[in-house]
Amino acid sequence: MDVGMLKDWFARMYPVGAAKRGVTRLGYSDEEDEMHALLRSFAEELGLIATEDSFGNTFISFPGAKAGGRVLIGSHLDSVPEGGRYDGVAGVLAGLLTMAEFGAEKRSIPLETVAFRCEESSAFGLATVGSALFVGMIDPETLHIAKNADGKSLYDAMKEKGYTPDNVSAPSDILAYLELHIEQGRVLEAAGKKLGIVSAIAAPVRFRVFFEGRQDHSGATPMGMRKDSLCAAGEALLAVERCGEAESEFATVATVGIIRNEPNALNVIPGCTSLGVDVRGIDAESVRRAVDAIRKEVAEIGRRRGVRFRFEEISSSMPVMMDPSIVHGLCSSAERLGADFMTMPSGAGHDAMKIAPYAPSGMVFIPCRDGVSHSPEEHAEIDDVFLGARLLHEFLSTNWKENDRCFSFPTAM
Amino acid sequence: MDVGMLKDWFARMYPVGAAKRGVTRLGYSDEEDEMHALLRSFAEELGLIATEDSFGNTFISFPGAKAGGRVLIGSHLDSVPEGGRYDGVAGVLAGLLTMAEFGAEKRSIPLETVAFRCEESSAFGLATVGSALFVGMIDPETLHIAKNADGKSLYDAMKEKGYTPDNVSAPSDILAYLELHIEQGRVLEAAGKKLGIVSAIAAPVRFRVFFEGRQDHSGATPMGMRKDSLCAAGEALLAVERCGEAESEFATVATVGIIRNEPNALNVIPGCTSLGVDVRGIDAESVRRAVDAIRKEVAEIGRRRGVRFRFEEISSSMPVMMDPSIVHGLCSSAERLGADFMTMPSGAGHDAMKIAPYAPSGMVFIPCRDGVSHSPEEHAEIDDVFLGARLLHEFLSTNWKENDRCFSFPTAM
Repeated sequence: MDVGMLKDWFARMYPVGAAKRGVTRLGYSDEEDEMHALLRSFAEELGLIATEDSFGNTFISFPGAKAGGRVLIGSHLDSVPEGGRYDGVAGVLAGLLTMAEFGAEKRSIPLETVAFRCEESSAFGLATVGSALFVGMIDPETLHIAKNADGKSLYDAMKEKGYTPDNVSAPSDILAYLELHIEQGRVLEAAGKKLGIVSAIAAPVRFRVFFEGRQDHSGATPMGMRKDSLCAAGEALLAVERCGEAESEFATVATVGIIRNEPNALNVIPGCTSLGVDVRGIDAESVRRAVDAIRKEVAEIGRRRGVRFRFEEISSSMPVMMDPSIVHGLCSSAERLGADFMTMPSGAGHDAMKIAPYAPSGMVFIPCRDGVSHSPEEHAEIDDVFLGARLLHEFLSTNWKENDRCFSFPTAM
Repeated sequence: MDVGMLKDWFARMYPVGAAKRGVTRLGYSDEEDEMHALLRSFAEELGLIATEDSFGNTFISFPGAKAGGRVLIGSHLDSVPEGGRYDGVAGVLAGLLTMAEFGAEKRSIPLETVAFRCEESSAFGLATVGSALFVGMIDPETLHIAKNADGKSLYDAMKEKGYTPDNVSAPSDILAYLELHIEQGRVLEAAGKKLGIVSAIAAPVRFRVFFEGRQDHSGATPMGMRKDSLCAAGEALLAVERCGEAESEFATVATVGIIRNEPNALNVIPGCTSLGVDVRGIDAESVRRAVDAIRKEVAEIGRRRGVRFRFEEISSSMPVMMDPSIVHGLCSSAERLGADFMTMPSGAGHDAMKIAPYAPSGMVFIPCRDGVSHSPEEHAEIDDVFLGARLLHEFLSTNWKENDRCFSFPTAM
């Protein structure tokens, strides 16, 4: 495998959507188109075939590939505003490099690289659009409701680019889906590991907590006569942290990312305060326990302080398990490569989350510097992308049965 | 005394600056001018003399008043945007009614009613402008820096109206200053009292606390690897509440009115959070103890959590004591009237705060419904304003020595 090829691809993609800091390559924008066009030209230089589905997802296949089962390696090429150059791109290029290696070995196996459209929610407020459309798991109405900053609907944006998001259905020929991605956390870095084999993708349960107290003059209201909604919220956000910590052995996390306070003036005791809570984990029972514990504590805080409270659900989804045979196979392959690896959950969402219900899926994480992503400071080492691609190649090589012309993944212990 | 006269005055002022809800009569606006013009016409109807100083403050005096010492009863006629009709106005009209009564008694005592300009900070970000100019306690540079929503400086706004804020000096002929005001809290209401004799006006010590942690992905960062600035701020705001409660026996209060959180997104662990803290009291030692305790707790929170912290002072002023002889005299007069009264601190600031360093001052509070002010819902009973005016009249009557043609306030016990 040729790390120079990988470096060249990253270098040629570098200027696309270059913002003041980082890159801006929003889903279904001209910059995302440019990224897909570059991917096609890289593929064609390798003698591979580039096609596009009716949602703009790009597929790279070997020439003469027959219909029937195929293994996909994929990720996405869009970014958040002023984002990094590795989130998504690393996975697509790792797929292409893996195919280049199989091509060099003259092994035309049923492998494709896919670049899904619009994985980031920044453009239309919806994440993993291309992969969800690919498996037919998107409500068509949603495409009309979701709008970008200019007020244009996702449906119209797709139509303008010549895509036809009207008919979606799940493909039935996907043997497996593999995705390499930067970790977006500091777990690998802290553990000194080069590769993470993802066991499951956590699903967030998100809700708002509203406290309504009594807005009063901060000077004229004695401490004993107050119904301070911000103080209630202060207790509640510490309860969220505590409930997350209590479930941390199950890899559950709980975060208050958003606080809104009214009237938010120096001389007024806050009357209304709300919190946006995000609880995630790969163990649905543990997530449920954390959410229940938070609700119980909020109720106790509200009652004790005489402050009204209510909950409002934003979203609730279930964790997505990676296929145990693929996880096991990836671990064995990593061992054979002599790589420093660990299994770990993914706290962030990925395209794999959408494909996993339809095909056995696996994910490989590589470290990103300081765990930073969605930021101009995002950085990953090309050598780590290369190691990840080598792992994908090793794993597919081992499990490709040349004689039967099929993949055979081992059963997990 | 005639409560009907008071009702008539309030009714005639009612429409001035009527907004969708409440009234908007900003300092140095045409609406404030209209209020002062109405006051002048009320005065002239009573045969009193209205004059204006070079800052737009209106003074109502008895005809033929001689130069020399004078007692002022005053407050202000401006409001916050969509404010109430009693905050300030009650005090000015109580002054006028007191003079009307002395006039009816044919007693021309050296008493004046003053309506100060621009008491509220809403117009130019500066409170008690007219009273501060009257005693010469304003930095001329400040008038150029302070700007309204249109970007016009307070200096230019005053100049346009023909005022000359260039030369300010303290008057030396003020024997005493009395101010009636709505309480702006619920202390009187909760105690079932009709009158509050103010012992001192609390001064705020205001500062910001900044926490800088580490912005991270809320899904990908285990609980044990976080430096959550919002959690640090949550602990800190509860510490502010606790430190206020610890000093509540000294009538000190501590409030976090403002919280700002970055980036304030559902899937991001907050990296920067700041709090706006307001600590007030009439016992400077107690306020200092509370502020010191808060700083100590913030430092402990920051160190324990590994989150950087810093403080930024906004303002710091000393409590202003009301004159003990006047407080004592007002209490005696309230007893003679058989009124339900109590002595209490003022947590809110008032014009009296500016005059007190130059002349013995006293304040009388009347209840306002639910403690609400600076709001369209602000309401006070005209009968309570009337009772307050009767107290001022009783107090001045008792202490006016007709033979010596001077006031003689009793010494406090």
